[in-house]
Amino acid sequence: MIKLKGYKFSAINAGIKKNKLDCGLIYSENPAICIAAFTKNLLKSNSIIVSKKHLKKSKYFRCIIANSGCANTACGKNGVKDTYEICKKLAKKLDIRPEEVLIASTGVIGEPLPKNNIINSLDNLVSQLDSKESSIIDFAKSIMTTDTEYKIVYRQIKLKNEEHSVLCIAKGAGMIAPDLELCKSHATMLVFIITDIPIPKNQMTQIMNKVIIPNFNSFSIDGDTSPNDTVFFISNNITKRNLDNSQFVEISRCIDIVCKEIVLKLLFDGEGVTKVVKIIIKNCDNKTAKIIAKTISSSLLVKTAIYGSDPNWGRILSACGRSGARFKIEKVDIWIGKYQVVKNGNTNFISDTIVRKEMQKNFFEIIIDLNKIRTPIPYIFYTTDLSKKYVEINSMYKT
Amino acid sequence: MIKLKGYKFSAINAGIKKNKLDCGLIYSENPAICIAAFTKNLLKSNSIIVSKKHLKKSKYFRCIIANSGCANTACGKNGVKDTYEICKKLAKKLDIRPEEVLIASTGVIGEPLPKNNIINSLDNLVSQLDSKESSIIDFAKSIMTTDTEYKIVYRQIKLKNEEHSVLCIAKGAGMIAPDLELCKSHATMLVFIITDIPIPKNQMTQIMNKVIIPNFNSFSIDGDTSPNDTVFFISNNITKRNLDNSQFVEISRCIDIVCKEIVLKLLFDGEGVTKVVKIIIKNCDNKTAKIIAKTISSSLLVKTAIYGSDPNWGRILSACGRSGARFKIEKVDIWIGKYQVVKNGNTNFISDTIVRKEMQKNFFEIIIDLNKIRTPIPYIFYTTDLSKKYVEINSMYKT
Repeated sequence: MIKLKGYKFSAINAGIKKNKLDCGLIYSENPAICIAAFTKNLLKSNSIIVSKKHLKKSKYFRCIIANSGCANTACGKNGVKDTYEICKKLAKKLDIRPEEVLIASTGVIGEPLPKNNIINSLDNLVSQLDSKESSIIDFAKSIMTTDTEYKIVYRQIKLKNEEHSVLCIAKGAGMIAPDLELCKSHATMLVFIITDIPIPKNQMTQIMNKVIIPNFNSFSIDGDTSPNDTVFFISNNITKRNLDNSQFVEISRCIDIVCKEIVLKLLFDGEGVTKVVKIIIKNCDNKTAKIIAKTISSSLLVKTAIYGSDPNWGRILSACGRSGARFKIEKVDIWIGKYQVVKNGNTNFISDTIVRKEMQKNFFEIIIDLNKIRTPIPYIFYTTDLSKKYVEINSMYKT
Repeated sequence: MIKLKGYKFSAINAGIKKNKLDCGLIYSENPAICIAAFTKNLLKSNSIIVSKKHLKKSKYFRCIIANSGCANTACGKNGVKDTYEICKKLAKKLDIRPEEVLIASTGVIGEPLPKNNIINSLDNLVSQLDSKESSIIDFAKSIMTTDTEYKIVYRQIKLKNEEHSVLCIAKGAGMIAPDLELCKSHATMLVFIITDIPIPKNQMTQIMNKVIIPNFNSFSIDGDTSPNDTVFFISNNITKRNLDNSQFVEISRCIDIVCKEIVLKLLFDGEGVTKVVKIIIKNCDNKTAKIIAKTISSSLLVKTAIYGSDPNWGRILSACGRSGARFKIEKVDIWIGKYQVVKNGNTNFISDTIVRKEMQKNFFEIIIDLNKIRTPIPYIFYTTDLSKKYVEINSMYKT
């Protein structure tokens, strides 16, 4: 049972999509703090442009309206104006200030914003606001696009004998290669991390920077960073008193677990995904690790080999070599699961049959040790396979 | 009819592959000059390592042996030694020095080099050397991997009333995103440009740098730069006398046409390719254009949209935005064929039906004008679609 103090949810079909929930609302009974991270894509959704303005203008916010079926991006000169109008009308109905409204969108880029559909559904969205679990689920459904299931992670945490909650709602199956920056923008990943923990803004920002953003920047489905990616981290339990260190660590850990769980949900529900792979890069600086992880995770040859459980590890080694990172190829060791396929940049003569078996799992690890410098913590990055289904979904998205 | 003075060719089945030509030989009756460009991938085929050594050691070369079915890459500690041994044995049979032998390989990385198969076939390779057109075609067939057809372009050119020839033989269908550097190495693209034009080494190097490399670095099928990519530019008509300017321009143009023809052959025969797209980037510096071209040409969402003729131009605009290049998104104009889909970074309200029709062609242009700085010559880059067939081919390459 999800218990979250002071938040209400609703969702309806506004007619943007046929017979599906396509518009949702999150409402906070009290003024709440929102720390946001947006995509770094130069192309930005009008929803992000307006949300950023509102976050600058107002210390607190009261609600987030979200829609699927239209990215509200590159959809004509009036896009920003129309987005403001939606916020203004919604504010009036809720008796709050327009800048206390945030907005998020996901769907096809360039499609005209169905402004009137959304405006006409505001009355119902507001009147149906509710704290029931079913309303939360409906909200999660209303932001789905090619997702096959809604994504919710929920955890409780006890602070000074009081129960608090962290709820995470997310969507995103394609155009997923988050590249988030605090209050900069990237996304067809929408994530709402909502809590009633009393936590001051500066510590929320710390958690966003050190826990949330690294988690969402650590995976890629198709390498395509969207102009809509948004993570909202929200608390309605406003306080100025800092959490003490042990509390802060505990809450950070709780949110870290929530993020990791939702990231796996996003990965496994990625468009056409049949397998998830954890890439572990060892013993090199972070920059090098990042370049290699991104190259491997976006290599069509590696991704199709993963799909077919084809033990073609040469493609992984070759992707390292072409990545542009600087290292000695003759020092590279590679494991697939527990089997070392590459030793000193050369074959380790492991039988294809064994490696194929490992690769037939729906989750396995690829470990790459560059033996460049000793580093205590490896760099972790998650990716997925590339299936015929992915091609099918994305070759007729708009058709 | 191909007429090429002083060269002989042969090809046989050495038993690396079943019942297919898999080993070929090009022989020059006289000492010849070879300018080579290899992949920049840090991982390098033993064939490239040895060819580079030989090119350093010897001013002239006499033959190139090539095999398909094995990349001769990361295939064990003895890889380089075995490769030298093949060259040495072949040199003995041809009565030339070992360093006058060059070698090229293509196939699966990490597979053991079938050294004995190759050595046992040397006698036949040498005895079958011939200048007939059918031998040239057989050579072209012997280096094919997933290519569905052999690739030869041939042109004649008259200099001072004497007929000369340029012959280009190439292979490559997957792991194609050449990133060549003069005498550095990248490739599962193998290209042999062979001529009997009297042209001195310094002018051959100029043509390699200004004509050949730019052509082969201007396209990508799957973004995966191979550790085997090799371009050999060969002339057996040794001279120290520079061509005069008009001759040089004429020859450069002829070779440019040959390169462009073979690049289109490589593109259209790319793994699973159903469409080729010419990306034209206008009015920005070369570095910016390159980043954008590479991002678009490796975007799974753009490539699948091309496959499905899905007029989802938002993906092109979004790929520009996430590329990391710096420009003003609100100045970007995009055309698909002759239809302007994006104006000032926003929709131009072109009907999907019209754009879909354009995208149904097997060859069309995507024009991106960044309006950043005025540049007289646009940047050109070719790419392909991403089909289910590509996934099928590459998910079981080794299986």
